Amino acid sequence: MDDIKTYMQQVGQKARAASRIMAQAGTAKKNLALENIAAAVLSSTAQLITANAKDTAAARVNGLDAASIDRLTLTEKSVRNMAEGLLQIAALPDLIGEISDLKYRPSGIQVGKMRVPLGVIGIIYESRPNVTADAAGLCLKSGNAAILRGGSEAIYSNQAIAACVHQGLREAGLPETAVQVINTTDRAAVGELITMREYVDVIVPRGGKSLIARIAEEARVPVIKHLDGICHVYIDDEADLEKAIRIADNSKTQRYGVCNTMETLLVAASMAPHVLPQLCKIYLDKGVELRGDETACRFVTQMTIATEEDWRTEYLAPILSVRVVAGLDDAIAHINTYGSQHTDSIVTENYTKAMRFLREVDSSSVMVNASTRFADGFEYGLGAEIGISTDKIHARGPVGLEGLTSQKFIVLGSGHIRN
Amino acid sequence: MDDIKTYMQQVGQKARAASRIMAQAGTAKKNLALENIAAAVLSSTAQLITANAKDTAAARVNGLDAASIDRLTLTEKSVRNMAEGLLQIAALPDLIGEISDLKYRPSGIQVGKMRVPLGVIGIIYESRPNVTADAAGLCLKSGNAAILRGGSEAIYSNQAIAACVHQGLREAGLPETAVQVINTTDRAAVGELITMREYVDVIVPRGGKSLIARIAEEARVPVIKHLDGICHVYIDDEADLEKAIRIADNSKTQRYGVCNTMETLLVAASMAPHVLPQLCKIYLDKGVELRGDETACRFVTQMTIATEEDWRTEYLAPILSVRVVAGLDDAIAHINTYGSQHTDSIVTENYTKAMRFLREVDSSSVMVNASTRFADGFEYGLGAEIGISTDKIHARGPVGLEGLTSQKFIVLGSGHIRN
Repeated sequence: MDDIKTYMQQVGQKARAASRIMAQAGTAKKNLALENIAAAVLSSTAQLITANAKDTAAARVNGLDAASIDRLTLTEKSVRNMAEGLLQIAALPDLIGEISDLKYRPSGIQVGKMRVPLGVIGIIYESRPNVTADAAGLCLKSGNAAILRGGSEAIYSNQAIAACVHQGLREAGLPETAVQVINTTDRAAVGELITMREYVDVIVPRGGKSLIARIAEEARVPVIKHLDGICHVYIDDEADLEKAIRIADNSKTQRYGVCNTMETLLVAASMAPHVLPQLCKIYLDKGVELRGDETACRFVTQMTIATEEDWRTEYLAPILSVRVVAGLDDAIAHINTYGSQHTDSIVTENYTKAMRFLREVDSSSVMVNASTRFADGFEYGLGAEIGISTDKIHARGPVGLEGLTSQKFIVLGSGHIRN
Repeated sequence: MDDIKTYMQQVGQKARAASRIMAQAGTAKKNLALENIAAAVLSSTAQLITANAKDTAAARVNGLDAASIDRLTLTEKSVRNMAEGLLQIAALPDLIGEISDLKYRPSGIQVGKMRVPLGVIGIIYESRPNVTADAAGLCLKSGNAAILRGGSEAIYSNQAIAACVHQGLREAGLPETAVQVINTTDRAAVGELITMREYVDVIVPRGGKSLIARIAEEARVPVIKHLDGICHVYIDDEADLEKAIRIADNSKTQRYGVCNTMETLLVAASMAPHVLPQLCKIYLDKGVELRGDETACRFVTQMTIATEEDWRTEYLAPILSVRVVAGLDDAIAHINTYGSQHTDSIVTENYTKAMRFLREVDSSSVMVNASTRFADGFEYGLGAEIGISTDKIHARGPVGLEGLTSQKFIVLGSGHIRN
């Protein structure tokens, strides 16, 4: 335990020192490092797959479930995707040093803001080894130093990827310590990482709810976190029927296990007889289990009665809860009570109701006549995504490079003093 | 203790409910409430001063020091200033609902951001009762609900101001629970406030270092905090002598007890013989005690030797530490080592060095040829200031109304689904 503390303190010190260098690194040098890492990843495909095989073999011995082993496994294709992702990050504009809002004040000084890195970012994730390359790339491009703590089941894969990252940094003349991958599987390392306020500026956990809840509880460093995605589509009295069915279908069935998928459908009472029979037929044909309130059940025989718990549940599965509401006020009240402030969409042709929904629903993404599945950094044009924040301060919704930066004030004078 | 917990939970629930109403309140209604509160404050001048007299009498009995009693005391003038401050907040633009960056994406959806309140803001402060009106006004204008916890020594004053705030809210048709002033002096109330994550979105502590350090340690709610202000002026080799003296004088002596005052002066070795004798004469004439490194002491006989501790000290007093450095690199290294990332200024005529200082000094305000005393929400044009943040996430530097808001994503489609 003391050893872990000492080790993590050293990691922290090195990260802090590297962050000073990374903050000053020019755009060309950072992009070169990203391109170098991509090249190193590609040319190390065989080694990466060999290292990964050790992890997957151990995972099988340890009885990990098939889905986890699937997330853990690297293939030639996933290695190529990793390299491709790094090149995409290299192609994004460099936000660091950007000056905005530089204005003269009555005192004669000019005041503006300059975008700067956060400093040292700790990223804690689970079994996917590709996160190592992805997170390293995003932190590097945004001028930060990174401390990465992947799942213990991916330790060999992550160390092999780390070797590529270090090679790429070194070849670009940047410090290898700009990206450090924790080389112990001891859970105490996480406890240190999330409490070293002097060395770590923000923690980004990427993983399941229990991991994130634990980190939020124990962290003394600020956390950019993403808890549940209990997303809603509300089909209004004045919805276009065809759009309503298309959006409600896509929001639920385009993919089941992701955070921006719809978990509860709300339907205005006057629309229920028109929309529910044909929409629910689509769901049932695709194998979606339906749980509704009493009114909804009247329109669909294969629907079972939903419990109070259903409205609060992120299924991440082909299950949907359905509620018939009186209208917009009821829908907003339901969302603000049971939702997780992630993503919610209204289907309506009514201007006033669309505007009210946009304003009154307190979620990180609020939509009109669009599928909740659009809540995504790439779809939003952020170019990359480190995660989706359900927090309110710093960053809400999909977090791209900008979420890994901050703005400082700059003041330009020519001998100005305050009276 | 259980009673305090129950009481604070009720306060939290009421604040959360009120925050939903405040988030939707129109600009005119919020401004009317602010004007009403200002009017109530003015017409209650006598009652406020009577309530305040109870606090100051108790403070004298309890042996509070003169400076604290001074901060605690309300006068006709300070009551007028309180009302004036509320009217200034009413005159500021309303940021809530502002939509920015609404752009079409290749998928056909439009993606933008809408500015929204944070929700419930907890403000913890010490003896100044005017903070009650000021903080209430800022939270109200930014569409938030506020829970205010002032110093126990100001309890009667704060309750009297709260009565004015409630009257103003009521008369504008807004919920009185939008601003709740904690009516117990039990310290356990603070412990509850900073850990009620379900009811409080952010904590803004305003007070001394020990208060803020305690809150940062114990809080489970995000904190926008301001620790030390160890500010530097660096006089470069290529400084204009007259500007250097003017800025270094103003940065230190315009006011001593504030966070943006200079605490350490750094002088390039080649400038030291030219600047130190005449600048230090100004300081000594104004009664500033000087503590310098060996080289600096050679130029000023009344200067004593500074200890390592001096470089890390926020004096908030007529004391200045002075160090002679080799040049820009040395100055930046000193600032990034000993500073508190608050406000630092370079005096130079050299373009390249000015640009390097702006980029490489990792502080919330970085200045060229201007007094550190400009680091202030009013001077920066924010219109008002809830505090100065030395944090890196969410808000850095002076925090105005914008720091009490966040941005959610909005998506406008017309039946768009994801492929």
